Amino acid sequence: MAEAPSRGLADVVAASTALSDIDGHAGLLFYRGYDIHELAANASFEEVAFLLQRGSAPNRGELEGYRAELAAGRELGTLAAESLAAITRRQHPMEALRSLVSLGSADDPDAESNEPAANIRKAARLTAQQPVLIAAYHAARAGRELPPADPSLSTAANFLLQLAGQRPDARAAEIFDTCLVLHADHTMNASTFAARVCAATLADMHSAVVAALGTLSGPLHGGANEQVMRTLEAIRQSGGDPVEAVTSQVRQRLAHGEKIMGFGHRVYKTEDPRATHLRRMSAELASASGDDTYYRMSRQMEEVVLADKGLYPNVDFFAATVYHYLGIPTDLFTPIFSASRMAGWTAHVIEQHADNRLIRPDSEYIGDRGLQWVPLDAR
Amino acid sequence: MAEAPSRGLADVVAASTALSDIDGHAGLLFYRGYDIHELAANASFEEVAFLLQRGSAPNRGELEGYRAELAAGRELGTLAAESLAAITRRQHPMEALRSLVSLGSADDPDAESNEPAANIRKAARLTAQQPVLIAAYHAARAGRELPPADPSLSTAANFLLQLAGQRPDARAAEIFDTCLVLHADHTMNASTFAARVCAATLADMHSAVVAALGTLSGPLHGGANEQVMRTLEAIRQSGGDPVEAVTSQVRQRLAHGEKIMGFGHRVYKTEDPRATHLRRMSAELASASGDDTYYRMSRQMEEVVLADKGLYPNVDFFAATVYHYLGIPTDLFTPIFSASRMAGWTAHVIEQHADNRLIRPDSEYIGDRGLQWVPLDAR
Repeated sequence: MAEAPSRGLADVVAASTALSDIDGHAGLLFYRGYDIHELAANASFEEVAFLLQRGSAPNRGELEGYRAELAAGRELGTLAAESLAAITRRQHPMEALRSLVSLGSADDPDAESNEPAANIRKAARLTAQQPVLIAAYHAARAGRELPPADPSLSTAANFLLQLAGQRPDARAAEIFDTCLVLHADHTMNASTFAARVCAATLADMHSAVVAALGTLSGPLHGGANEQVMRTLEAIRQSGGDPVEAVTSQVRQRLAHGEKIMGFGHRVYKTEDPRATHLRRMSAELASASGDDTYYRMSRQMEEVVLADKGLYPNVDFFAATVYHYLGIPTDLFTPIFSASRMAGWTAHVIEQHADNRLIRPDSEYIGDRGLQWVPLDAR
Repeated sequence: MAEAPSRGLADVVAASTALSDIDGHAGLLFYRGYDIHELAANASFEEVAFLLQRGSAPNRGELEGYRAELAAGRELGTLAAESLAAITRRQHPMEALRSLVSLGSADDPDAESNEPAANIRKAARLTAQQPVLIAAYHAARAGRELPPADPSLSTAANFLLQLAGQRPDARAAEIFDTCLVLHADHTMNASTFAARVCAATLADMHSAVVAALGTLSGPLHGGANEQVMRTLEAIRQSGGDPVEAVTSQVRQRLAHGEKIMGFGHRVYKTEDPRATHLRRMSAELASASGDDTYYRMSRQMEEVVLADKGLYPNVDFFAATVYHYLGIPTDLFTPIFSASRMAGWTAHVIEQHADNRLIRPDSEYIGDRGLQWVPLDAR
């Protein structure tokens, strides 16, 4: 007999992975054995994506080759490009990305193959495509042409260029690059787990990342960073001193049993190590912007929620203000999460396919038993 | 510390459900407490979909209302309809369905709501749409108009009408209806589990069923029924007596350690109760068709695999020949599985949203530890 379920598979080990590791009590995160603090300080997103997808930190030649693959992969596929305008008019950003990535398999020459070499190539192309799809969506809804990609730029700098239509300043690109590094992988988070469940039927990589995209869209996962910003905006617009308003409104929400988005994590019992970097970058950008209101509001919210609920900010909390200060529209925050996590999702698909077993759990039946089917007219 | 993982979550209880229950040792399957044998003999697909999505067997008034909802839901959404031709030209059936259902949220007025009433309405619309999308895809690739739906017909009969352009005979429609009943739900199979992992982030129903569609496409899940037919076709085309060829070729494949598709199941340790009905219907259709070769080949394959490997046929094995005898193209077998399972997927999303907890398991880290990040030029 199957045992009683652990609700939400909390503390159940669902897979083995060599991609990332969390020590939730010490507040540590590692990608392939490297501490996230070291990576945030020293590694580029391209190095991290290569590390995750191909197994080790690239040397200069490997990194140049990978950058060239990414640059070549930035051109949108025909089917997605043809559908972009109609999709942009009719679907919200995460819905649109789900559709566009699903359409994208039509233009990927390796779409149907789960061979390791094909998966490696697709992982690079999907990682290259995701930020371009976001910028293309944003351009389409503004009725603008997508600014051409610049193959000399990093993923981060090129995204900011294609989003805004002008070259970003170097420090903004650096900060955004660090954001991409911080969000790239995180063990069996829900979207990654969905990707692995999908890939474990030997479905292809596009199917798996489309499953992950839909999963990330939920407000209990990637959707949280947008909700953080909307909460800050709503409190600021409610009038009075915004920092004082944070205290009163957060306490009011907590008193009504409402959840404050951006706080707490299933795995971390102390500060999320990613939040440390995002807080620092939020402070820097706030100060440079000349209006640090949202940053000060965030710090106040952090204090109140820690004092009243004992919860720490998670990766979504300071990501919200970082993206805001970088000039990114709020409804693109979750899409940007996907642009980074694509590196991890694809690496997990590669890992799953390399040593596969179908993921097919049991369930506990809690309904009626032994019913007799009654003919329609006797019901 | 987390325990060592159960590979593929075998025997791990991942969720509670009142939708279906399996006794793998006795070979029993129940939907909401009703034995699948009773349902296969007495219930229509519409009754079963209502039972799963709305909690109890419908009375006549409820069933008529539900049938009317399904009939009204058969019109394709604008975005999917506009994209159909291009998608059909560029994507295989399961890829295309993944894209078309993702686009479909644009035309569903409830797409963004997870409220119970909205979920109930969406479940009916998605169940109504899925067979129509398959028929529309098939018409588009043949360069034909989609035959108009007939609101007086059942889901099964209307699908066969829209697929072939002519009213099916009554017995064929009845048999296909039973196929839809048999495939409607099956506890925590991989696609349903993917749908629940997705829905548990409070992602919407479209995201969840798109995740499920991608997951079903894998050859270790829904893709198996197509592989069964392709194996039978390949053996028949290899010449000689096809039944004798089954014996020799299956033994040869087994000797090379190859898997024979359509056999064995993680949960059933005896005959899959759905296979019993599919075998019977395959026999009936084979006899009516005047060429029972594929049926006889299947029976032989069943005997050889049971004798040599101790494995029983699963739901995919006789579904293959049933669909073949019904005149359905082989590459639509997995899509048809999705047309039935849509009833179960949507019911599981409703159930997940009604009592939600994020599904976020742990993982076991098996990679390197304590690595130092080396500067690029020192690698």
